[in-house]
Amino acid sequence: MEARNFLESMIWQQKSLLSIEGLSSEEILFILDKAKSLKESKGNEEPIFHSLRGKRIINLFMEPSTRTRVAFEIAAKSLGADTISISGEASSLTKGETLKDTAMNVQALGADAIVLRHSSPGSPLFLSRIVDVPIINAGDGAHEHPSQALLDIYTLREKLGDLRDRKITILGDILFSRVARSNLWGLLKLGAKVTLAGPSTLVPREFEKLGARVTHDPSVALKDADAVMLLRIQHERQQASHFPSLAEYANVFGLDSKVLSAMKRNAIILHPGPLNRGVEIESEVADSGRAVILQQVANGIAVRMAILHLCITSEKSSHS
Amino acid sequence: MEARNFLESMIWQQKSLLSIEGLSSEEILFILDKAKSLKESKGNEEPIFHSLRGKRIINLFMEPSTRTRVAFEIAAKSLGADTISISGEASSLTKGETLKDTAMNVQALGADAIVLRHSSPGSPLFLSRIVDVPIINAGDGAHEHPSQALLDIYTLREKLGDLRDRKITILGDILFSRVARSNLWGLLKLGAKVTLAGPSTLVPREFEKLGARVTHDPSVALKDADAVMLLRIQHERQQASHFPSLAEYANVFGLDSKVLSAMKRNAIILHPGPLNRGVEIESEVADSGRAVILQQVANGIAVRMAILHLCITSEKSSHS
Amino acid sequence: MEARNFLESMIWQQKSLLSIEGLSSEEILFILDKAKSLKESKGNEEPIFHSLRGKRIINLFMEPSTRTRVAFEIAAKSLGADTISISGEASSLTKGETLKDTAMNVQALGADAIVLRHSSPGSPLFLSRIVDVPIINAGDGAHEHPSQALLDIYTLREKLGDLRDRKITILGDILFSRVARSNLWGLLKLGAKVTLAGPSTLVPREFEKLGARVTHDPSVALKDADAVMLLRIQHERQQASHFPSLAEYANVFGLDSKVLSAMKRNAIILHPGPLNRGVEIESEVADSGRAVILQQVANGIAVRMAILHLCITSEKSSHS
Repeated sequence: MEARNFLESMIWQQKSLLSIEGLSSEEILFILDKAKSLKESKGNEEPIFHSLRGKRIINLFMEPSTRTRVAFEIAAKSLGADTISISGEASSLTKGETLKDTAMNVQALGADAIVLRHSSPGSPLFLSRIVDVPIINAGDGAHEHPSQALLDIYTLREKLGDLRDRKITILGDILFSRVARSNLWGLLKLGAKVTLAGPSTLVPREFEKLGARVTHDPSVALKDADAVMLLRIQHERQQASHFPSLAEYANVFGLDSKVLSAMKRNAIILHPGPLNRGVEIESEVADSGRAVILQQVANGIAVRMAILHLCITSEKSSHS
Repeated sequence: MEARNFLESMIWQQKSLLSIEGLSSEEILFILDKAKSLKESKGNEEPIFHSLRGKRIINLFMEPSTRTRVAFEIAAKSLGADTISISGEASSLTKGETLKDTAMNVQALGADAIVLRHSSPGSPLFLSRIVDVPIINAGDGAHEHPSQALLDIYTLREKLGDLRDRKITILGDILFSRVARSNLWGLLKLGAKVTLAGPSTLVPREFEKLGARVTHDPSVALKDADAVMLLRIQHERQQASHFPSLAEYANVFGLDSKVLSAMKRNAIILHPGPLNRGVEIESEVADSGRAVILQQVANGIAVRMAILHLCITSEKSSHS
Repeated sequence: MEARNFLESMIWQQKSLLSIEGLSSEEILFILDKAKSLKESKGNEEPIFHSLRGKRIINLFMEPSTRTRVAFEIAAKSLGADTISISGEASSLTKGETLKDTAMNVQALGADAIVLRHSSPGSPLFLSRIVDVPIINAGDGAHEHPSQALLDIYTLREKLGDLRDRKITILGDILFSRVARSNLWGLLKLGAKVTLAGPSTLVPREFEKLGARVTHDPSVALKDADAVMLLRIQHERQQASHFPSLAEYANVFGLDSKVLSAMKRNAIILHPGPLNRGVEIESEVADSGRAVILQQVANGIAVRMAILHLCITSEKSSHS
């Protein structure tokens, strides 16, 4: 607990990280600042790198994921915590068991936090009302993926500075994307101008109600953008085919050198990975200096360290 | 070795935990007392929490299990040990290899103990004669599941005190249950009166020879019980259908509020999990204060810590 | 870094271990000597056992393996490193992603070394040109398996002493065996006389060009051998059937007591495991004192500790 200072206790009162929608801009910036100080002091022997010593973090991944799970595992270990990963598919923990019972069991096993990935939107919120330990949402269906949005926003701010009035375009499969949803909330809270773009079947006009501009014309979407966040075309999350073919998608919405040359000179490109080279992004573009895709991955460790540290050492957690 | 005191060396001489049938009542109580002292000193910086530092425990799970494996993993880490989990299904360790060769290999890799789950009854005993390191039986076919029985009995004693002459009913799929078998041996050794109950196809009359009362009438089984241990209906371990349907089973043997109200006022309910809500137990009952199901899970950590500590630090192990 | 002495810096300049073919005999002996000193000081509290503290080693296994992965995991932990294992089959890291992108991601996650198993020959070399961190080849297709060859050679030297002019026979499925290939290079570099033996379909005459004797007659192959390295008959790596049946293979090339008795009195038998008892080796022979199969497994830990220590603490790695 010593590693938690007075300021942290004042500003950060959350025990769980359930969504970006539920955070204030002050809270978002507080996590990002914490991540920045963690990234900068990396390798030093500061007390924060032991702040979760003796803590046990259980990754409960009821949907397959390697990328996010490994990043949370590394983040937890970097703060001195122990981690146990339970994957739902292979899990006999879950034979016929309700999610509530699984979570109660995980808590009874002595978890100090549960990092949850689940296909049902709202399941982290549901669990947070049942168990006493912090719940970190690592992706719930098409709802939210807050740690991904925080690392995306961290990377945007690292490159662009303050995001107020910056033009950020999210391009691709918006309809089914928890990444898009979490980023949209976060960017709007920080004052950015967000454009949602992609095929009309994947980017419904109603998304304007959320406060974003919607367009189905890639040239309009990218013309003035300071950054474009590409989304992976996720076949698995689509009930039906929403565009004729991958080649067709690549042709109209794929980010290639020609499109890039029409963008602002310093505009940057983000992608949550894994890349479909030749579909949503051309290889040459992905490998160019304009893409900050690997910086996103690296920042993801610092951001998740900040999330775990703040949630697990929060007043509410320590009193539970 | 310093963490092992003189008394431990006198009473506990076992290197392996193979079964409950093979333990004396004195040994059972010794493990349970050790678990109690571990549970009570949890969070303190006592030397026992490093008693397995530098030890390497290999979980060799040739049958799927998350629950038991994770509990052993947490218990091992809580004593400072390293753990490696090898699951048999996915394991190339086992391509065409005999169990003996697998175990010899695991020993050659430097294991200080092997926690074994295997579908063949007697496989832990078999291995204990081949390898020099302690073997902890984490479930062998329909034979025994000693760590589960020890945590069940720990929980019973925590709630009921001394078990001598206490009436304990085990209800459900006795025929195929290693949990039932281990508990039966343990409870009888501690002087409890055990009733085995369930459909006649799952609770053969011959079980009376083991020293228990057998009944197929749930009201007889539960009337005077101080505790009832429900068993999970395990489809996977049954060659043929032993009752008409799950609904039928629930109707006759399911523990619902009405059945509960006919039981002793302080009778408690145990279940090894995962719960089939609406089959062997009604949701309302599972969530009531009478059910001690989550306490069982939590006690499982302390009990498994005691098992690992006692076996790995025993005289016989340290001289091997 | 303190654990690295002046001599290590002079002789060992490699950042990665990609193949045996690419090592000098001096480098091979240097690894083996390092492994020997690690094996001998096991259990002591020497600084080398913390030489990788704070390092993060990612096992990237795109082909199934338990044996090699677990050995690397134990070796890494024995030097104080953290390990994360990512298996390719189950991995969403790899959905549609190129190997290059996967490796770049793993590096961005903060890996200090990548232990790679992959079905494509040359993939470790390919990655070593892309990422900055050490790449340890844990088996690439039918190309090489350098850590296996090093532990085999370690074991041979432990039993036979200097290998110059010693007669070593490799018997079995040479054509598809990365183990055979790596051992062949290593043994020749150390001055041993190597015989490759097996069915003509699996041991082509062209292998003579590599500097080995080729024979399809097991009695010729074994007559004067100081050691025989048996290879596992690997159905999975064979496109077509290269011999009539397993029984036929066992009959002609299986090492049984009769064959053994015709060999030199002190000749030893190696096998990389898992054993097909009754196919390439008779049970009685495998369990005899002549077989050093379990010593190979145990030596594999020390050898892999040496590999990880030398590669990760090399000048080139520390400056990257």
